[in-house]
Amino acid sequence: MWESELQNWENILPAFKAYRDEFRNIYHLRNIGSVLHWDMEIGIPSDGLSERGDQLSFLSGLAHKSFIGDPFRSLAEKARDENTRTDLPGKSLRERELNLLFKDLDRSSCLPISWVEEFSKVTSQAHSIWVDARKKNDASSFLPILQKIVDLVFQKADYFGFSTEAYDALLDEYEPEAKAADLEVLFADLRKSLVPLIAKAKDATFPFQGNFPIDSQIPFNTSLPVLLGLPKSGFRLDSSAHPFSTSLGSFDKRITTRYEESDPLSSVYSVLHETGHALYEAGISLLAGGPSPLKDSVSLGVHESQSRLWENQVGRSKEFWEGIYPLFLKNLGISEASLPFSKLYSFVNKSKPSLIRVEADQITYNLHVILRFQIERAIFKKELVLKDLSGAWKDGMKSLLGVDVPDDSKGFLQDVHWSGGAFGYFPTYSLGNIYAAQLYSAFLKQNPKFPDELKNRETSSLLDWLRKHVHSKGRSLEAKELIRQATGEEPNSKYLVEYLDSKIKEQEVI
Amino acid sequence: MWESELQNWENILPAFKAYRDEFRNIYHLRNIGSVLHWDMEIGIPSDGLSERGDQLSFLSGLAHKSFIGDPFRSLAEKARDENTRTDLPGKSLRERELNLLFKDLDRSSCLPISWVEEFSKVTSQAHSIWVDARKKNDASSFLPILQKIVDLVFQKADYFGFSTEAYDALLDEYEPEAKAADLEVLFADLRKSLVPLIAKAKDATFPFQGNFPIDSQIPFNTSLPVLLGLPKSGFRLDSSAHPFSTSLGSFDKRITTRYEESDPLSSVYSVLHETGHALYEAGISLLAGGPSPLKDSVSLGVHESQSRLWENQVGRSKEFWEGIYPLFLKNLGISEASLPFSKLYSFVNKSKPSLIRVEADQITYNLHVILRFQIERAIFKKELVLKDLSGAWKDGMKSLLGVDVPDDSKGFLQDVHWSGGAFGYFPTYSLGNIYAAQLYSAFLKQNPKFPDELKNRETSSLLDWLRKHVHSKGRSLEAKELIRQATGEEPNSKYLVEYLDSKIKEQEVI
Repeated sequence: MWESELQNWENILPAFKAYRDEFRNIYHLRNIGSVLHWDMEIGIPSDGLSERGDQLSFLSGLAHKSFIGDPFRSLAEKARDENTRTDLPGKSLRERELNLLFKDLDRSSCLPISWVEEFSKVTSQAHSIWVDARKKNDASSFLPILQKIVDLVFQKADYFGFSTEAYDALLDEYEPEAKAADLEVLFADLRKSLVPLIAKAKDATFPFQGNFPIDSQIPFNTSLPVLLGLPKSGFRLDSSAHPFSTSLGSFDKRITTRYEESDPLSSVYSVLHETGHALYEAGISLLAGGPSPLKDSVSLGVHESQSRLWENQVGRSKEFWEGIYPLFLKNLGISEASLPFSKLYSFVNKSKPSLIRVEADQITYNLHVILRFQIERAIFKKELVLKDLSGAWKDGMKSLLGVDVPDDSKGFLQDVHWSGGAFGYFPTYSLGNIYAAQLYSAFLKQNPKFPDELKNRETSSLLDWLRKHVHSKGRSLEAKELIRQATGEEPNSKYLVEYLDSKIKEQEVI
Repeated sequence: MWESELQNWENILPAFKAYRDEFRNIYHLRNIGSVLHWDMEIGIPSDGLSERGDQLSFLSGLAHKSFIGDPFRSLAEKARDENTRTDLPGKSLRERELNLLFKDLDRSSCLPISWVEEFSKVTSQAHSIWVDARKKNDASSFLPILQKIVDLVFQKADYFGFSTEAYDALLDEYEPEAKAADLEVLFADLRKSLVPLIAKAKDATFPFQGNFPIDSQIPFNTSLPVLLGLPKSGFRLDSSAHPFSTSLGSFDKRITTRYEESDPLSSVYSVLHETGHALYEAGISLLAGGPSPLKDSVSLGVHESQSRLWENQVGRSKEFWEGIYPLFLKNLGISEASLPFSKLYSFVNKSKPSLIRVEADQITYNLHVILRFQIERAIFKKELVLKDLSGAWKDGMKSLLGVDVPDDSKGFLQDVHWSGGAFGYFPTYSLGNIYAAQLYSAFLKQNPKFPDELKNRETSSLLDWLRKHVHSKGRSLEAKELIRQATGEEPNSKYLVEYLDSKIKEQEVI
């Protein structure tokens, strides 16, 4: 609907066209930066790393200056002025676009250079201190610099501004308009249901034997994005230390995975996850008109919902595996006898409370996130001081997951995020899971035959539905409103709990 | 010697430092452009090609404006002014650097935008017309647009300026300070010796049977740049439609090759050639001080000499193959019985006059180049009109190589260069061969034991010699002077003829 309107604006509104032309240049600079990053991750010669850092900092400086400086701001102001003086179709969407743009501009320019430099200095020091502290299990060496980071992040919240609590300003960077008080309610519901659920969860034995050379894993992994609907001519799959998805242009999406010779499923789930992200970005790029602030993802939570939905709701379903099981075995040269379907399927949906978030299964994962949310919020409500962090972590893990944390390395030192100053980011992981389950449930109600289609490796009805209800919205709606319109309900954890519960019940039967 | 001087200039001369700092930004922009190009060649998703074109044109526009505009020009003028007023060490090299810079600046800014746009439009039209004309063997459809290109190139020569003939201005773009009249003498000598030589040249039969999967070829190819002295941590080898070498930063060199399943030598010679280019760039980067106009290759002829020397003088020598023969066989799973050394070695040095330059052997290759030089020069002396091009080509091929050209597709339509307006470029190929032979001969006189070292896969004495006599000179000397200082003689074709003659004699013995 709004796509065709978008297309015509530029021809009828000269100031709007001028601002959008300049926006395209900034878009190019950002994509060029993504090329440099992508190349760095997929295997830059190590001698080139230092200069690549210089190239990236030069380029991001250029992009930043082009964005916050003139002539771009003046052009945007003229476009806003022009829009208020017209009554042409699309007026309210243009208003939304320009409001988002000025919010982005304010965000990008409200931090003083001195703060940015100090933050960059402290977090880069903190990274190596954190690596060391985790290795040596020495929390005391990390806490002083973490305190500096927390102080700087408090300052950032002040620069950003907030009405209720500082943490809202931090959340807003990743999940615009999200409020800590709302998340508290959402996560409390989830927690109440999940804690009794994980007591019933089932572990499964590792079903693979021997090694599977990476070359033998590549063809199957490369077929997955195509199976999910990413055009063959629109992506590249590479390998990197940490799997990621990135956009080097409107129709150029890159995915990476990490191969393990002993476990050929590890790469598969990375590919499914990253393909979900790439499909979202690709769906947005399909919208009419050139680059604009509206043609972007609405929030990290929604972004994560797209990866989680394909990874979990689809990728851990019986029907999906019924569809790909023969191909999977064939590509790896495994016989059905040595890897029976039930054994594989159990393993894919196994669950066991554990200490490390990044290794957690789909059922226990959210409790890891809830713990971090509680702790972060307490810090920024000044209810928790850093010297009590270790104890709070251990208590939280015990009450949420029932596990005893033996030391801080397996406790609050495990994640990289805080050493980089990323507070407010963790909640988007569980928001993604909540949104994914809610979206998938709404989709299934309208498309009850989808599981049968999956058995035949048909996924297009789901992609079409997601394009219509999620991708095509871009940033025209806030996340909450997007979920509401797509599912007919406020975001809530009911569907995630139902989904996870069904997984546990299924495992009991096997 | 001049390295350490370079290092200190920036600290003692503030204006020089300021100009160099700005030069570094332009250097970053150029390297970033190389990243985009490299990625495009090694396998960008095809849907991304069009936007990549936009990104590249935006970025090269940015680099161009930063280079020819203020503040860079003012900073460079201040640095020049400062240098004339001092008597500090390195003065003459700084003067050379700034002279080169102003020559580059004048070159970049002397062409009117209208000319640049017209040239770009005409050559991009010409490319597809040329593709079609070659396919259909229809010279008449190509000649009109070629005439437009020639007219535009005449204009370019006028904008660049020249004292004797227009062709000198064209040559100067690729081989600075080279004069057509000098090349005429150099190439006439070469021609006189080569024509009788090729009559004695020997062909050889294709020695491989069956197919060699690309995966099985990669490890051996990847070991070659390391064998030649490129640090493992400083390069990446990928595959692309056309092999090339590019520099994405001072210590980040990229090489590509093209694999043929039926011919495992094809990729090997591309790798040796491109490694030669990469070693030259890497050698220049090793010089003290940051990026500067002096830290660049002196000419395409010298660049080509570095690739040819490793590809031919080294890579087609008996001792080199004695060193790598067992590894080569082992990596491909070929037995010694099915590929005897003498058969392989004959094939590597085979020679037979043929129609297509890019498929020509080392002995006949230069006659292809000489023909193009004669024709290009005649066009720009207005001694040859385009309607006589086809006939001139056929006559030239007959008298130089003794072959009959059956049609224009295998004649003057075979090369892409003219459709892109690249006149004056071809001679650098033979200059490269001439320089390579002369340099290698001088090196061998000082290092007579090198062939024995090669047998043991030892190549460092050659790389050290090239670094000292070629790489470390950067652009501080013109090509002619560089060769003179390195070899004690004016550039001449005697050593190339001697080398090729020895190859033919060797084949007679086998």
